Amino acid sequence: MLKEASFAVPAKPAHLASMATSHSFKPGTVHLVGAGPGDPDLLTVRAARLIERARLIVHDGLVDPAILALARPDAELISVAKQRSRHSMKQEAINALLVREALAGRDVLRLKGGDPFIFGRGGEEQEACRTAGVLCEVVPGISAAIGGGASAGLPLTHRDHASIVSFVAGQCKGLSAQNWTGLAGAGRTLVIYMGLATATDIAEKLMNDGLSPATPVAVIENATRPEQRVLRSLLADLGDLVSRERVKSPGLIVVGDVVSQADAIDCLPLHHFASFGALTT
Amino acid sequence: MLKEASFAVPAKPAHLASMATSHSFKPGTVHLVGAGPGDPDLLTVRAARLIERARLIVHDGLVDPAILALARPDAELISVAKQRSRHSMKQEAINALLVREALAGRDVLRLKGGDPFIFGRGGEEQEACRTAGVLCEVVPGISAAIGGGASAGLPLTHRDHASIVSFVAGQCKGLSAQNWTGLAGAGRTLVIYMGLATATDIAEKLMNDGLSPATPVAVIENATRPEQRVLRSLLADLGDLVSRERVKSPGLIVVGDVVSQADAIDCLPLHHFASFGALTT
Repeated sequence: MLKEASFAVPAKPAHLASMATSHSFKPGTVHLVGAGPGDPDLLTVRAARLIERARLIVHDGLVDPAILALARPDAELISVAKQRSRHSMKQEAINALLVREALAGRDVLRLKGGDPFIFGRGGEEQEACRTAGVLCEVVPGISAAIGGGASAGLPLTHRDHASIVSFVAGQCKGLSAQNWTGLAGAGRTLVIYMGLATATDIAEKLMNDGLSPATPVAVIENATRPEQRVLRSLLADLGDLVSRERVKSPGLIVVGDVVSQADAIDCLPLHHFASFGALTT
Repeated sequence: MLKEASFAVPAKPAHLASMATSHSFKPGTVHLVGAGPGDPDLLTVRAARLIERARLIVHDGLVDPAILALARPDAELISVAKQRSRHSMKQEAINALLVREALAGRDVLRLKGGDPFIFGRGGEEQEACRTAGVLCEVVPGISAAIGGGASAGLPLTHRDHASIVSFVAGQCKGLSAQNWTGLAGAGRTLVIYMGLATATDIAEKLMNDGLSPATPVAVIENATRPEQRVLRSLLADLGDLVSRERVKSPGLIVVGDVVSQADAIDCLPLHHFASFGALTT
């Protein structure tokens, strides 16, 4: 577990400092690696190789245990699972941990769910490394929307349905502060990460922006994992759907006509069906 | 190479038909697999395994030779590289080829650059399989934007710069027919696939939509490959940049403030610099 103590770079004793000079001491590298959506087979070849070799892995709560099980038995695993209430402090502590370990000469495998640069705060960790003069390699991962699309048979773009796809996050900032105008609608696919808890507000926000209540939506729970569920309804029913079906995190919300192509369970209750018309499948 | 002859399902001789019934003949599976942006290390573990085992691979022109080199020596490789002028006919022929081979009992590895569902027409191939009753597995891939973002050190989302990222294609349909309003601007990252040939029109289109000529842009040529180049300038200079630097396909255009974070070569000529002000780096 992450120790909350000091992340300052330890002072180097004089005899080590001189040794470092004569032996050309090298700081370690931070490998900022996407672990993909959950299925270990969806790691990249490069990520799998790095995990199998790493001696120090700093990982998020979202990384699947089956992926961590690929690590060497003697690897040190540090979980930095985020607590929602104190995001920003934690991120600074993670940055400091990565830099401290690299400056102490260790290679650090920083393992993040999905892709490091899609709502992963990889940009901030990369910046911290650059500022400290630490080499940082970024290895991309299958982001949840891309993995979920594939495993749900849901093409995020399609010549007949959508030539634009956008990714947003439902919980990163206050929802009302975010401007999503124009991201959903005819010819466009909108994927919302981390939106389960605010699903009702999300539907309302989109309808206030002018989107039809009859816009098709899908919810993908546990994308790419054996227990994956794909549920389909209409926008006006989104909040009800999530609570009625007790959809659990991690979950994705997909809004747009491409949803008609998914391998999904249709969950539209009759009264919505009557008001908004049938799904076009 | 793809034979243009007939893709109809071959009639089964009577003795084979009865044999098929008694031995419960099974059609093959179509594996619709993303090959990622080019670097073989960025294949998923599942994709790499399927390529190493496949006896029949139907691949796009965009798939890197280093990836095809992973195939068995006795694998049959069929290239279906698209010719831009006759897109739609070709796609139907590809669909028919996949279905025909699967119905003849062969497992087909359909290998596509990037991800099958991000401008890959995987949705159409999946539909063809479903219609014919052929099992279709979709294996996601690292899409060019995600691979290019990682290798350019360019975070597509970032708490300080962008909470929305959108992908569009510069050549799929007529540019003027596409509505990109609201996809680029403050707090948003826009990634344009296949936009090099129309870079000047793209810049004009975005400026007509109200985007500032001083919006930062980056061009990523040969993302994730050893010969990758990342060039940075401002929107008003985008078309000039592409021709001045002779940027070659495959290339990505990234529009938005996150571009300031990239490992890039700044390419702004002095007269643009004077008119629009310095890049914020």
